[in-house]
Amino acid sequence: MAKRQGQIKLGAFHYISGHHIAAWRHPGASADTSLADYVNFAKTAEAAKFDAVFLADSVDVRLLHPEGAARKAHTGITLFEPLTLLAALATATSRIGLIATASTSFNEPFNLARKFASLDHISGGRAGWNLVTTNDPEAALNFNHMAPVPPAQRYARAEEFVDVVRGLWDSFEDDAFLRDRDSGLYVDLAKLHVLDHQGPHFQVKGPLNSPRSPQGHPVVVQAGSSEPGRELAARTAEVIFTAQQTLAEATRFYADVKGRLAKYGRAPDELKIMPGAFIVVGRSEAEAQDKFEALQQLIQPEVGLELLRVMLGVDLRGYDLDQPIPPLTDTLGSKSRQTLVAELARREGLSIRQLYQRIAGARGHWQLVGTGAQIADELEERFVHYGADGFNLMSPLLPQGLTDFVELVLPELRRRGLFRTEYEGRTLRENLGLARPAHRSARAGASVAAE
Amino acid sequence: MAKRQGQIKLGAFHYISGHHIAAWRHPGASADTSLADYVNFAKTAEAAKFDAVFLADSVDVRLLHPEGAARKAHTGITLFEPLTLLAALATATSRIGLIATASTSFNEPFNLARKFASLDHISGGRAGWNLVTTNDPEAALNFNHMAPVPPAQRYARAEEFVDVVRGLWDSFEDDAFLRDRDSGLYVDLAKLHVLDHQGPHFQVKGPLNSPRSPQGHPVVVQAGSSEPGRELAARTAEVIFTAQQTLAEATRFYADVKGRLAKYGRAPDELKIMPGAFIVVGRSEAEAQDKFEALQQLIQPEVGLELLRVMLGVDLRGYDLDQPIPPLTDTLGSKSRQTLVAELARREGLSIRQLYQRIAGARGHWQLVGTGAQIADELEERFVHYGADGFNLMSPLLPQGLTDFVELVLPELRRRGLFRTEYEGRTLRENLGLARPAHRSARAGASVAAE
Repeated sequence: MAKRQGQIKLGAFHYISGHHIAAWRHPGASADTSLADYVNFAKTAEAAKFDAVFLADSVDVRLLHPEGAARKAHTGITLFEPLTLLAALATATSRIGLIATASTSFNEPFNLARKFASLDHISGGRAGWNLVTTNDPEAALNFNHMAPVPPAQRYARAEEFVDVVRGLWDSFEDDAFLRDRDSGLYVDLAKLHVLDHQGPHFQVKGPLNSPRSPQGHPVVVQAGSSEPGRELAARTAEVIFTAQQTLAEATRFYADVKGRLAKYGRAPDELKIMPGAFIVVGRSEAEAQDKFEALQQLIQPEVGLELLRVMLGVDLRGYDLDQPIPPLTDTLGSKSRQTLVAELARREGLSIRQLYQRIAGARGHWQLVGTGAQIADELEERFVHYGADGFNLMSPLLPQGLTDFVELVLPELRRRGLFRTEYEGRTLRENLGLARPAHRSARAGASVAAE
Repeated sequence: MAKRQGQIKLGAFHYISGHHIAAWRHPGASADTSLADYVNFAKTAEAAKFDAVFLADSVDVRLLHPEGAARKAHTGITLFEPLTLLAALATATSRIGLIATASTSFNEPFNLARKFASLDHISGGRAGWNLVTTNDPEAALNFNHMAPVPPAQRYARAEEFVDVVRGLWDSFEDDAFLRDRDSGLYVDLAKLHVLDHQGPHFQVKGPLNSPRSPQGHPVVVQAGSSEPGRELAARTAEVIFTAQQTLAEATRFYADVKGRLAKYGRAPDELKIMPGAFIVVGRSEAEAQDKFEALQQLIQPEVGLELLRVMLGVDLRGYDLDQPIPPLTDTLGSKSRQTLVAELARREGLSIRQLYQRIAGARGHWQLVGTGAQIADELEERFVHYGADGFNLMSPLLPQGLTDFVELVLPELRRRGLFRTEYEGRTLRENLGLARPAHRSARAGASVAAE
């Protein structure tokens, strides 16, 4: 295989005080992340030429069951909802992409299509939608469901949801609005396309009450790595946010998903695979380890166990913490996440206690601790072997994790020609190397179910 | 009656190129209202000490039926969705309130509670929610309904919706978050209140994944003037955005709604009544009339008829335009809006053509054309006779309508002591003179159904 050309894409994943579960207890973290903290984060990432800021989301409060843990854990409760927050950040930045997570299970496609189109207009073409189906068992209880929604049902809804959203984004052709004062003609109705979608989950007439947005369609990101998640991504996503621990896993996943694109008439480059990478970097290995240990020591045991409950979908309280995890038969959460974490425990021979310590930082994602050169080596290896098109940086502690990466890792990547020194374009699409989608009226043989 | 004390509250209502239906054709208007236009609007209103910017909204494209009109009318299609837009405007302003319209018929209460809480956090306590039930007949077709939702059903849902939202805003007490690094205690669970709402329309467990917002609850505005709208407002709203043409109508409405508050244990001052006022102001009467006529001349007849279809809920094409409107038996839209417009036609003896010309600016709201002193006289009269606590300014043309009002009317109001020269507070609530609601755990005998 010839040495891979091109450059790494980078997303800056934001999680409150930092991705490490005990980050909020660290004296360097803002425990109560304010708007100013987010603005600084976005500006720092933009100055470093990251492709995008990436916001996770949930629509419930996790970690509430076991009282001890709930009192002691940062429970994912934030001041801000991602779409409103990114609209605010859009005005403080000018080039960086803005990706928000939103659930297909608990939204209406008309509302979501409109909000992302609005964010794309506000930001001049920098919006991205991270489509999730929401596997938190408690989320459904906030939306009129008596029990968690089964995965098959969530994915069937997601499939149709994304088609409706894309259809609504094409309500008007790019040049539909004449706004001709003299003739009094406001809109060319020949360039209006009423969706008239009638499906099993959605009946949406349209049109969307918004002109086509700068990117045509905001970039669609997808986070699931399960079988239906991969298939949905292959058909509809432009970026995959995924989790792989090892190079072997990563290249297998990469080949699998890219291999599914052809049957949807898509080229491999139309989908960027950007796994998460939890990175602790120091000027020396010892400094990196020290930084990591400072966080590890702040983990409270009941919080660690609660983390396992969320990651494995199983409550392990009552088990001997110094024994391996028991055989797992079922999960209340994501099956692919359970498999990933259980596989990690098996591979590294970890006890329950060691397992929660092991994932308290990366939470199932790839974990790297080392010098700038070591980190760059690892990222380069994964990139050149087609294990990834880029990475979503998970900072252990904010703001330090991001600034450390910018100071210590980016210069290494740039020296190797692996990361940009200036943005290639004005839109998120242009920077990611994704084409602007033609309006569906111009696409021949498009396989959009909504048409 | 002693002369009324206090000052007028003012909202700056924003409608695309201006409230007049032909505003987009005027050479002074931005036909394609950009983010910069909105930022300028908000900054101008803030410099003038308006209480709030007020954004209307709809979730469909109106005026699509008759082809001629659809091509020629500004169809309410905007680049921006109100909540994302206000989040962007929050960063460009620091004191003015930010009120967004959102529908109880086509949203989930958990999502809406969260977005308004987020806007309140982003803006430091300046968010307001204009609760509408959405009477546009076509809106329902974008949200899985096969036909428009009947008013009674919309209001029953709205009643429950607002209780759920308020309950979710009280998920945590103000001081629930300890974030104590040393003890490792993040949250005081005694100050967490799970909603566990089980009602006919909604089953929402909660809690909301957001700390209590700066205002406790974002300000709740309500726009309906029908019988169920008044009752809902008396029980739950803090501001009413309404439409009355005459002083007699206004004082009757004011007395009626304020009179309903006692049975909900509320004082008259806990609800501010702020009708719309469409104002064309000039340095002389002739200048004001000229400005108005310049807009009136831009109205295209088919657009005028389409406006009547929307306002009356009846299609009058085919009728003799120079005859009075025929007896109206039914409406596809708002009954109270139909009554208001039909009453205007009867009172002023207008033909169909004259009626659409008459409402093309104010669209059912109070219309004033005159000098600064004349406008101030009218506003003062309505205020001192308890016809209003304030007004929502509808600018015929933007940005000129707002700057005209600031230059020509505000100095008159200030001379009379009727409008502030500086903000009284930091939050929308403080400026409107509304108390910050105590957390429901501290309210004795609160009549919140969700509790």
